[in-house]
Amino acid sequence: MGKNCIVAQSGGPTAAINASLAGVISAVKASENYDKLYGAIHGIQGVLRKNFMELSVLDEDFIERLSATPAMYLGSCRFKLPDYKEDEQPYKDIFGVFEEYDISAFFYIGGNDSMDTVAKLSAYAKKIGSNVKIAGIPKTIDNDLLVTDHTPGFGSAAKYIASSIREIAYDTYIYDVKSVTIVEIMGRDAGWLTASAALSRNEFSMAPHLIYLPEVSFDKEQFIVDLKRELEKHKNIIVAVSEGIHDKDGNYIAASTAKEDKFGHAQLSGAGKALEYLVKEEIGVKVRSVEINVLQRAAGHMASKTDLEESINLGSSAVSYTEAGETGFMTVIRRLSDEPYTYEIGYADVSKIANEAKSVPVSWINEAGNDITGELIKYVRPLVEGEVDGYYKDGIVEYVPIPHLVK
Amino acid sequence: MGKNCIVAQSGGPTAAINASLAGVISAVKASENYDKLYGAIHGIQGVLRKNFMELSVLDEDFIERLSATPAMYLGSCRFKLPDYKEDEQPYKDIFGVFEEYDISAFFYIGGNDSMDTVAKLSAYAKKIGSNVKIAGIPKTIDNDLLVTDHTPGFGSAAKYIASSIREIAYDTYIYDVKSVTIVEIMGRDAGWLTASAALSRNEFSMAPHLIYLPEVSFDKEQFIVDLKRELEKHKNIIVAVSEGIHDKDGNYIAASTAKEDKFGHAQLSGAGKALEYLVKEEIGVKVRSVEINVLQRAAGHMASKTDLEESINLGSSAVSYTEAGETGFMTVIRRLSDEPYTYEIGYADVSKIANEAKSVPVSWINEAGNDITGELIKYVRPLVEGEVDGYYKDGIVEYVPIPHLVK
Repeated sequence: MGKNCIVAQSGGPTAAINASLAGVISAVKASENYDKLYGAIHGIQGVLRKNFMELSVLDEDFIERLSATPAMYLGSCRFKLPDYKEDEQPYKDIFGVFEEYDISAFFYIGGNDSMDTVAKLSAYAKKIGSNVKIAGIPKTIDNDLLVTDHTPGFGSAAKYIASSIREIAYDTYIYDVKSVTIVEIMGRDAGWLTASAALSRNEFSMAPHLIYLPEVSFDKEQFIVDLKRELEKHKNIIVAVSEGIHDKDGNYIAASTAKEDKFGHAQLSGAGKALEYLVKEEIGVKVRSVEINVLQRAAGHMASKTDLEESINLGSSAVSYTEAGETGFMTVIRRLSDEPYTYEIGYADVSKIANEAKSVPVSWINEAGNDITGELIKYVRPLVEGEVDGYYKDGIVEYVPIPHLVK
Repeated sequence: MGKNCIVAQSGGPTAAINASLAGVISAVKASENYDKLYGAIHGIQGVLRKNFMELSVLDEDFIERLSATPAMYLGSCRFKLPDYKEDEQPYKDIFGVFEEYDISAFFYIGGNDSMDTVAKLSAYAKKIGSNVKIAGIPKTIDNDLLVTDHTPGFGSAAKYIASSIREIAYDTYIYDVKSVTIVEIMGRDAGWLTASAALSRNEFSMAPHLIYLPEVSFDKEQFIVDLKRELEKHKNIIVAVSEGIHDKDGNYIAASTAKEDKFGHAQLSGAGKALEYLVKEEIGVKVRSVEINVLQRAAGHMASKTDLEESINLGSSAVSYTEAGETGFMTVIRRLSDEPYTYEIGYADVSKIANEAKSVPVSWINEAGNDITGELIKYVRPLVEGEVDGYYKDGIVEYVPIPHLVK
């Protein structure tokens, strides 16, 4: 049995995926069973290309700063393994690399697609009688993985979104004229992030006044009715909408864009822009749309301390479970209580998690479909708790260097 | 002569305008010449409506938190005073209120338009022989006021923009595919904020690789040439563009949007979106546009400490200058040295500042018109220095309550 391990990352960036990587590195360094830890650059493709960097040589100071660095230190890939019954070659290649590098455990940090890779590799290992342990560590701002109470990256994104909406609210309240601000939030199929906008409400501000999730069909006429009613009660309305809102037939709410350009193809702009135009036309009030862009997943300077700590634990626990002989699992968070918030780390069969998605429960959405309930607030609240002291250099946020990803 | 003062705010929000307000409040509280300080809600309109809140009763803890609260505690207005020779009534009303409230000084914190109000009110005071001192305190993220070395709010916005671009760069670097990310930044007529994006460069990342300011005519074909050249050198390109870029005839670079909707009016989307479409059509590489939205002026959690300290000083010095008998001025920052950065506060005749704008000097833009020079970096660098400890409550950024602005 080999003495070394490989870790890789995959999917979209988050503020917490490097915290899980830091957890894996620290645990392997402290382990008596494992020797070297290789980081594969660009996910499973890095394994196939033998594109590795040695991580077990990193010192504690670097590892701590890594845990608060957003995006992905090892880079990502979009690569789905074929069914081994149809195409065995990539599997042969991967396990060939495992043998060449004396590997006894492979850790893959990612979302749904990455867990599909973990499930396939562990099934193949079983088939060929390989002893290499295959472990998944969850990650996705979308919070749509099954079994685990929530996913690393979600709490930090929720914190950024709720804080940003509070700052946007302060920005809108200054003028003595009615206005509508549409804030578009990530999460095409699951409304967890958009729902988290509700955390920005306080004793004097109901912003966001309306919340629309992709779990509920969006009706433009009802939206205008909702908005007119809110505009009678409040001067400045903030609306939180998921990028994935769609009508009852499943068509995304989007504005079609025709360019005057010689190539002039139609382009789709997002839900926020579409609703901005709709409000301008149907109500005529001052209106603006704001897309909370990639910063909701990349703003490491506002990571949730709770999120980072959990992510580190999910990473280090994955190492322990493989040392105990487990394989084909994903580490999970089990919530023990809401107030005070307590949790424990466990693991679950990855084949029960891969390729499935968890939506916001209908019972956590109000009947009118334009807000969320207290249950959801109670669920999200503890996940955004705590701040991380940012590193700044010359006044600008500073993270660990990533020259190996930059060309 | 009256014993009380009025302060008001006007124009667009910034992360630092409440710091200047805090400076005024502290100075009036400490003053032996002044008694009460009234805050007029919604700018000069609040004076006309006698819509005041007493500020001299606020305690030091509140004032300190106020100084780190973004947007405008007193609210804003868009109100331009007529020439008194054409319509004297608003002037009579305002000075009537001054008399009624026993006012001896009026402080107006704002940008160009607000300084126009300061100039007009002080000219009118002179005409009618009023002793009320009229003082301007600068504010604008655009950094386009004359005489003062720079404006409060600019440093914080620059810090947010440069830090955000660094985080966006980390986000783009993770994939092993070529990509272009267009980042649209505020500043319709002056490129100071877009130029500040250059602060995000470091030893391994040249992002933003290209910078386009409104001070230079934008040529779409040259842009594609620039971009193709950069794509040969680097994998992921980040482009910083001002919202105000325009062609040599002065036409804004924008995408025309035709809606399928029954009302289907043409809408203009911004420069970022327009360039995104252009790159998609002309180069066909993976491309995304990101609009650094209102958060660049409202993100109090990332304010520059230097900016807030200067803003407080500009506010408190305005109070001192009126006590010394000055009127019709704006307080200004005079830079004494770059390294170490030192400055002093002074004042200047407001009539020489109002209604003029300061652009980025042509000598601080490279010859190709797609980058800035080291001079500009040297100028901006000290203004983003230093961080403010954010206030968080339940994991979300928390500022002083503004129930008086929320309906």
